[in-house]
Amino acid sequence: MQLAKSLQNIQPSYIREILSAASAPGVISLAGGLPDDATFPLALMAKSLAQLPQKPALFQYGNTAGYQPLLDHFREQYQLPDSHDAIVCTGSQQGLDLIARAFINPGDTIVMEAPSYLGALQVFGLAQANIISIAQNDQGPDLAQLEACFASNDVTMFYAVPDFHNPTGVCWSLAVRQRVAKLCQQYQVALIEDVPYRELRFTGQAQPLVSSFCPDNSLVLRSFSKIATPGIRLGLVTGKADWISPLNRIKQGADLHSSIPMQAVLLDLLQHQGFDQHIAQLRELYQARYRALAEHIALKLPQCQFNAVDGGMFIWLSLPACDVDALAQAALENGVAVVPSTVFYQERSDVAPALRLNFTNATEQELGEAIDRLATVMKQF
Amino acid sequence: MQLAKSLQNIQPSYIREILSAASAPGVISLAGGLPDDATFPLALMAKSLAQLPQKPALFQYGNTAGYQPLLDHFREQYQLPDSHDAIVCTGSQQGLDLIARAFINPGDTIVMEAPSYLGALQVFGLAQANIISIAQNDQGPDLAQLEACFASNDVTMFYAVPDFHNPTGVCWSLAVRQRVAKLCQQYQVALIEDVPYRELRFTGQAQPLVSSFCPDNSLVLRSFSKIATPGIRLGLVTGKADWISPLNRIKQGADLHSSIPMQAVLLDLLQHQGFDQHIAQLRELYQARYRALAEHIALKLPQCQFNAVDGGMFIWLSLPACDVDALAQAALENGVAVVPSTVFYQERSDVAPALRLNFTNATEQELGEAIDRLATVMKQF
Repeated sequence: MQLAKSLQNIQPSYIREILSAASAPGVISLAGGLPDDATFPLALMAKSLAQLPQKPALFQYGNTAGYQPLLDHFREQYQLPDSHDAIVCTGSQQGLDLIARAFINPGDTIVMEAPSYLGALQVFGLAQANIISIAQNDQGPDLAQLEACFASNDVTMFYAVPDFHNPTGVCWSLAVRQRVAKLCQQYQVALIEDVPYRELRFTGQAQPLVSSFCPDNSLVLRSFSKIATPGIRLGLVTGKADWISPLNRIKQGADLHSSIPMQAVLLDLLQHQGFDQHIAQLRELYQARYRALAEHIALKLPQCQFNAVDGGMFIWLSLPACDVDALAQAALENGVAVVPSTVFYQERSDVAPALRLNFTNATEQELGEAIDRLATVMKQF
Repeated sequence: MQLAKSLQNIQPSYIREILSAASAPGVISLAGGLPDDATFPLALMAKSLAQLPQKPALFQYGNTAGYQPLLDHFREQYQLPDSHDAIVCTGSQQGLDLIARAFINPGDTIVMEAPSYLGALQVFGLAQANIISIAQNDQGPDLAQLEACFASNDVTMFYAVPDFHNPTGVCWSLAVRQRVAKLCQQYQVALIEDVPYRELRFTGQAQPLVSSFCPDNSLVLRSFSKIATPGIRLGLVTGKADWISPLNRIKQGADLHSSIPMQAVLLDLLQHQGFDQHIAQLRELYQARYRALAEHIALKLPQCQFNAVDGGMFIWLSLPACDVDALAQAALENGVAVVPSTVFYQERSDVAPALRLNFTNATEQELGEAIDRLATVMKQF
């Protein structure tokens, strides 16, 4: 069989590829977006897992939108109004894919920040969308560029990661949030707000969701990969019922529903009295690792710049002029896996050299060793 | 946002809708395709579930193609040659969706038997395929019609359910299997062989897979919903590596991978020494229920015909001329849920009146009561 046209321009995910190289013995990986296995709240999930065999109904076919008690929990937790709805997905990645399939025709224009989350580039590429990229500064997207883009194009949706952006770690300011919401309303652009890292804030005050300023003009994607565990593949989309209903129709064909036993275990975890403490510990650990990484960089890579982050999983390390792809390859050969800036852009020419460094899945000692190795490689460049 | 064009012609699944009506108190449902909760091999899964918290690596992000020890098991179990590969999916429903997304452009021609599995009609509808239906007889598809169709159209794939077809229960004869494989090879049509009910044979000898006669020209979809449990949402696609690789690329964007803890539990179950006995008991139970249903029909609905089945979950009850949709509605109001033949056809005009009756999710007593209620309703028609 011939590949479908929609697939012909899609490359395998660089990051999924590098992750297998990065798992070679002796390699320290700052390449993935992985939480630390050791932090998984498995002790809080143990009772729930062990009790599953007493609950055969959880193993039957279930509702496409999700396990009802979990949906009820989310309605209360996120204070969804009656006019809004929720759908549990096989990871928030599926939520994004369902949104693209439900609302994008080939050639439709969607807007994202550049650099961008790779999984979103993949989904919108598969949907054959016309992707317009907006530059990002340390407060969020460039507002003048965003408004000019909205004004001069028929834009279907603006996909955004306002909390601790992947790959840059940028967290949008309050003023930017309010302004983006206003622009989305004014130009009738749907805001797709993806917040997988939102709970991983270790300093400063949480900002309101951008969608809280335009609730009927947005869909919110949530992930439980960072605060629970990724392997269970559970995410959530919320928004007005008119926009959630088409996602349900696609999901019927896409996988009928997501694993119900995993949804039941997630509900027990979210309601566990120890869950808040688990999150607090996670923030503390990731903050310590971030600080260790920042100190090592200041010491060993003084020629490189990065903006401080208040949470999330990544920093974005700007480099002096160099061939960043070759540098990343040399780093891997020298035992440290990193992701070069070029892969996060749709247009890979003229990309400023930078590296995305993950600080959540290596110990402080490993982070130090990784920066030492990186410094050695950079001297050769 | 406007719905994407691909979604505008897709109706919500009638069966997903009727299932919620069918779950009302007092209603006996023969409408779904549900295995019986009470048969779930949860005792065989209990140890595995309870041990999950000791295995944090299972809760991390995993490979898109699936949990490697499970993939190794399938390679051995299904004796896959080196040139073939496997991908674990979020239910075989996802496998079908990935196949459609990887290989079908809007307007491409795909062929199925009529009546057809609704989930496949949904998937191919969403892919905006040109669907051609081939009549089915009690040996399988009408071969003359199939060859004429292959000869006069540029057909991308033939989707087939050769073992205990949903909705008719037909199991293809050996001669039909060999002939279909030959036709697929001759006309370069990919065979998509969907075998969710294959293990549920309670009489007669298993037939070889159709794809065993054209292994490099086919993809096989397997489900663990009927022999393990549906709620865990795990299925499998196997076939030549060239055809599996594009499914991996789509799955990266669709949900990254399926639940790893559930895959590990499935592997333990498939390797459990009690698993064969579980399947034997399942067959025995379903055979007893099938026989009970058949006897009740012979006794109470002598005006209706059905072909005997050797396995699976359904019989196809042909009715005297009537408005079958109205009859199904009246049956529901009289406390028995069934699915009318019309919903299994792409073209709903001129459909012979029939009902799909499921015999796996009601006790013998309930099946008797259901037929009594159906007989009462039919007297009014």
